Amino acid sequence: MSKRWPYAVPGIPDDEFIRGKVPMTKREIRILTMAQLRLQQQQVVWDVGAGTGSLSVEAALITTGGKVYAIERNEAGIALIAENCQRFGVENITIVAGEAPAALRTLPTPQRIIVGGSGGQLAEILAHCGQRLAPGGFIVVNVLSPRNLVRTLQVLSNAPFCNRAGMYIQSAQLEKLGREDYFRAQNGVWIMSAQKEA
Amino acid sequence: MSKRWPYAVPGIPDDEFIRGKVPMTKREIRILTMAQLRLQQQQVVWDVGAGTGSLSVEAALITTGGKVYAIERNEAGIALIAENCQRFGVENITIVAGEAPAALRTLPTPQRIIVGGSGGQLAEILAHCGQRLAPGGFIVVNVLSPRNLVRTLQVLSNAPFCNRAGMYIQSAQLEKLGREDYFRAQNGVWIMSAQKEA
Amino acid sequence: MSKRWPYAVPGIPDDEFIRGKVPMTKREIRILTMAQLRLQQQQVVWDVGAGTGSLSVEAALITTGGKVYAIERNEAGIALIAENCQRFGVENITIVAGEAPAALRTLPTPQRIIVGGSGGQLAEILAHCGQRLAPGGFIVVNVLSPRNLVRTLQVLSNAPFCNRAGMYIQSAQLEKLGREDYFRAQNGVWIMSAQKEA
Amino acid sequence: MSKRWPYAVPGIPDDEFIRGKVPMTKREIRILTMAQLRLQQQQVVWDVGAGTGSLSVEAALITTGGKVYAIERNEAGIALIAENCQRFGVENITIVAGEAPAALRTLPTPQRIIVGGSGGQLAEILAHCGQRLAPGGFIVVNVLSPRNLVRTLQVLSNAPFCNRAGMYIQSAQLEKLGREDYFRAQNGVWIMSAQKEA
Repeated sequence: MSKRWPYAVPGIPDDEFIRGKVPMTKREIRILTMAQLRLQQQQVVWDVGAGTGSLSVEAALITTGGKVYAIERNEAGIALIAENCQRFGVENITIVAGEAPAALRTLPTPQRIIVGGSGGQLAEILAHCGQRLAPGGFIVVNVLSPRNLVRTLQVLSNAPFCNRAGMYIQSAQLEKLGREDYFRAQNGVWIMSAQKEA
Repeated sequence: MSKRWPYAVPGIPDDEFIRGKVPMTKREIRILTMAQLRLQQQQVVWDVGAGTGSLSVEAALITTGGKVYAIERNEAGIALIAENCQRFGVENITIVAGEAPAALRTLPTPQRIIVGGSGGQLAEILAHCGQRLAPGGFIVVNVLSPRNLVRTLQVLSNAPFCNRAGMYIQSAQLEKLGREDYFRAQNGVWIMSAQKEA
Repeated sequence: MSKRWPYAVPGIPDDEFIRGKVPMTKREIRILTMAQLRLQQQQVVWDVGAGTGSLSVEAALITTGGKVYAIERNEAGIALIAENCQRFGVENITIVAGEAPAALRTLPTPQRIIVGGSGGQLAEILAHCGQRLAPGGFIVVNVLSPRNLVRTLQVLSNAPFCNRAGMYIQSAQLEKLGREDYFRAQNGVWIMSAQKEA
Repeated sequence: MSKRWPYAVPGIPDDEFIRGKVPMTKREIRILTMAQLRLQQQQVVWDVGAGTGSLSVEAALITTGGKVYAIERNEAGIALIAENCQRFGVENITIVAGEAPAALRTLPTPQRIIVGGSGGQLAEILAHCGQRLAPGGFIVVNVLSPRNLVRTLQVLSNAPFCNRAGMYIQSAQLEKLGREDYFRAQNGVWIMSAQKEA
């Protein structure tokens, strides 16, 4: 069944995406990632390590007239991205099957880059993104591991990047526990971002 | 100096607002509040306890063709809302000076309600909002205190409200500490929301 | 196999307890609960809603010469407490099978009370504890739900209690995720405490 | 005025220490650090970067018959440690004025090591601690910065260390905000620990 997202802001509920066993960026983190990305209309966006395509779909819904490249190496993920595009009626996503950074070389220059997954190549991916990102463009990198946090900090703290920022988000959702409510914790995520020098 | 917000999503930096000593909803909480509000174009929004107007400004920038009513009883706040409207070139905010719920009675029916401050009248405000919110509309309530959390839970768990949801957000921002970086903690906030039965 | 805890501070690892399916207070929360309890030697301790007995065992190991009453209504829990006493070679725990507050009436006056579970009777339990706790004694109440937080706040804010304190603890543990490390979140817990007027 | 700590567990309130402007490990982090340290009686403890001596005092109160070496390079800190020893009537702390790792070379072999501050020498300090820690002994390292977290992870993941563990603690304390209560956030701390191979 096709779903449309009728609202003017990101925030599709997690369970509206088709997921399988591919890890998915949780809703709160998706919303804040989109905020850090500072999307505008008619932009080219790379979503590196797109997973289920949840961030690509949110970006594609916002950047009307723009184009989102969803880069993913995992076959299960590639199929899910296609399914999720169809589910949300999104037509401005191009799925790029392959491994970053190699798969990024022939893509058009992006004004915005999301790095949600890195398959062990984070330093190489960030270096390539630094070269290819349009001047003044924004990059947002989500990390779960301390080593990837430090790698990201090192790259985003140096030229050609500027305006490095970071947030750590720990969220919890209201759920029922018998007759009582409680807040179920999500794992914390670091959302790192920077701008490319103009 | 006038500022324009050129991006398609909420998330104005805290220090771009004129603030004085009035408490302001922090950026991460504003972004997630706007996500829970599920704004569409041409909607009527109430921002109850608008404070500096930061949530009103974000909402007004999103709901083009819509109208935001910023209700605030504090004089310093009322002046700041006016200044922030001018700063961001926002023309679809009406400032309502007065105390909720009394000040809400003559306002047009809202499709969306934000309750950011309650001045000790939370139960009365939520009861009035339940009557006045348009069927199918959304309400989002931000609370800092356990008692207000429970009051909000009680009201949003019962008719005419449905689809009650809640999240607890603990965020921290990357800052410098001498030569090292660290993450500076913000106070946790509960963002509660519900829909009015259609 | 019997285990001995050779260290001078609380903090038995979660997986050294026999658990079954009974919920158990996680190690970090146990450690901080014991700190709030401010145990001394030769004290009488009530552990209300003892579950697996993990808090009782920690308390019994600290209060040499003292006596811990583990009150539990659930049969699976009662059996587990006995097993955990044996496992850690603890002989100063008395298991009290029954429902609080009724089951508390015949117990000796406590200098310290832990309330870890309340089976829907939290207000009644806290009222009874207020009567029975020795003057100057401490009570520590762990809560997961907002309503129980507010109930506890209300009781501990009034006579015969004083020196009300509270902390919210959100912890996460380092774990492996493929080749990378990440921190796995535990649900947040409120640890509330107070002293009885002298 | 001299204070005595009459309780059998760590957890001296922050405001009972004499502090000045030297940063101090907050109470919740001190309690959990002491738990990770797994102190026994009659042990030699190093507290590297002792600051105000708050961790040294807690350790000295627990390890009766043992000896705590409080290593600190900052003059204000050295004076505060002496004052805090006197305040709590602790006589088994030796203050070592100097910079680690150099200042550690002539100290007796420790069974337990706390690293609370590193003055930019964390890698060197941890390497030296790996050599000097008694076989089977424990080390606990508190870090605030992502780079120090990764440095600590790298050292504690390799020989001569084993049983590496880590926790991230985000705590908040109940406080008054006008007529309402709220939880005031503390900055998150990573508490890393390991054992030396036997």
